[in-house]
Amino acid sequence: MPEIKKPRYQEPPLPEIDVEEFRKVVMTRRSVRRFTDEPIPEAVLQDCLDMALLAPNSSNLQPWEFYLVRSPEKRAAMAKACLNQNAAKTAAELIVVVARTATWKRHSTEVLEHWPEETIPRVVEEYYKKGAKVHYGRLPLDPMGKVKKFIRNVAGLSRPFPRWPNSQSDMELWACKSTSLAAENLMLALRAHGFDSCPMEGFDEKRLRRIVKLPSDALVLMVVGAGRRAENGIYHAQIRFNRDRFIHEI
Amino acid sequence: MPEIKKPRYQEPPLPEIDVEEFRKVVMTRRSVRRFTDEPIPEAVLQDCLDMALLAPNSSNLQPWEFYLVRSPEKRAAMAKACLNQNAAKTAAELIVVVARTATWKRHSTEVLEHWPEETIPRVVEEYYKKGAKVHYGRLPLDPMGKVKKFIRNVAGLSRPFPRWPNSQSDMELWACKSTSLAAENLMLALRAHGFDSCPMEGFDEKRLRRIVKLPSDALVLMVVGAGRRAENGIYHAQIRFNRDRFIHEI
Repeated sequence: MPEIKKPRYQEPPLPEIDVEEFRKVVMTRRSVRRFTDEPIPEAVLQDCLDMALLAPNSSNLQPWEFYLVRSPEKRAAMAKACLNQNAAKTAAELIVVVARTATWKRHSTEVLEHWPEETIPRVVEEYYKKGAKVHYGRLPLDPMGKVKKFIRNVAGLSRPFPRWPNSQSDMELWACKSTSLAAENLMLALRAHGFDSCPMEGFDEKRLRRIVKLPSDALVLMVVGAGRRAENGIYHAQIRFNRDRFIHEI
Repeated sequence: MPEIKKPRYQEPPLPEIDVEEFRKVVMTRRSVRRFTDEPIPEAVLQDCLDMALLAPNSSNLQPWEFYLVRSPEKRAAMAKACLNQNAAKTAAELIVVVARTATWKRHSTEVLEHWPEETIPRVVEEYYKKGAKVHYGRLPLDPMGKVKKFIRNVAGLSRPFPRWPNSQSDMELWACKSTSLAAENLMLALRAHGFDSCPMEGFDEKRLRRIVKLPSDALVLMVVGAGRRAENGIYHAQIRFNRDRFIHEI
């Protein structure tokens, strides 16, 4: 997002939040491998999906999609495509989390149509009308983004300049980031509601794409199994390496 | 994660959670573009990072890293590398969120060393000793993963079979997913503590890598600016397209 010189917008006052309630959500979230037969109330599930859609995302281009697999035939096929994992077989809901790499163009136009103020700041309008297209678009005859990368590297010689995204695989990474942020919201929201989840990457993408009938620009990030945690749903205590391996100060 | 036939582990009983407290976290989180001068108390920041490390992640291989940029010189250089965005210039903390694509090998050995039970289930031991290496490892002389992909597609003719990951760019996507889940925990945790964040993708990766001195397998996903929200820190009301565009039932 470009920066606006004279912001006038004011958010409503922030409420007090009990961080300990949030901590409970994060600390009790585990990847649950077996669920009970209990369904997730529809309102709860939809509420969790709504919270997923509030995740931060790149330039507000909202590249995510969530497919609830509910027809019995597709449900059975999905469990198989998820390699018959218990989490897939026993989940009350299976949600396919998909990142789209081509919807940004339509969305960059529609952000302006949905603009919440009467006057769209000029820098915003220019960004979504031109900047975003230059930034995310690919050059003709440059499938690997090598020309675009070269131009960026030349521009970056004299001043800081974004080097990315240039290629289709860059756009996959781009869409993956925002969509994963949303997926985490979904899983935490389920936990906050007393339910649980298991994000699965072990699936046969070819078979899955056929079941869900995904468009070609869609990338399957994960299948989230969700439901009520079974007593034997977690197989061992949580393992995390020492934080010093991951947190660095420079 | 492979599945274990006879689970004996029992999680502690689940606490009641007030979902409305969680909802406040998600609903009040906005990307904040200007922060006040107020520092984030060290204990709060470290607590947020600890909660980031509890995110779900692929095969528990924890491919994430977080770099707190604190030396004044690096801090100034980082703001420039982030294209002088206000969020970068005014943030109390800048946290570089990095996904590693090569640490999985070491981590797959160490998961076994850290195993929380006396006996490691055989299926777990085999997975981390062999399965993970076959699954995530690249074949020699197959830099684009074409041979590995072909083998997987042949294996997948007769039964569901994971088609992925095969190449370095697959591993980047792989590490991106888990690390983004952790980044969302970090940003929500900041909000739960009364602070705010702005995930920035607009940066000069070349300059940033020099500042942080990143290893070659590291991928910079985003720079999270964090601090106390300024009164003029949010530029407009939140915009989300209609949920029907993103949530599908099949």
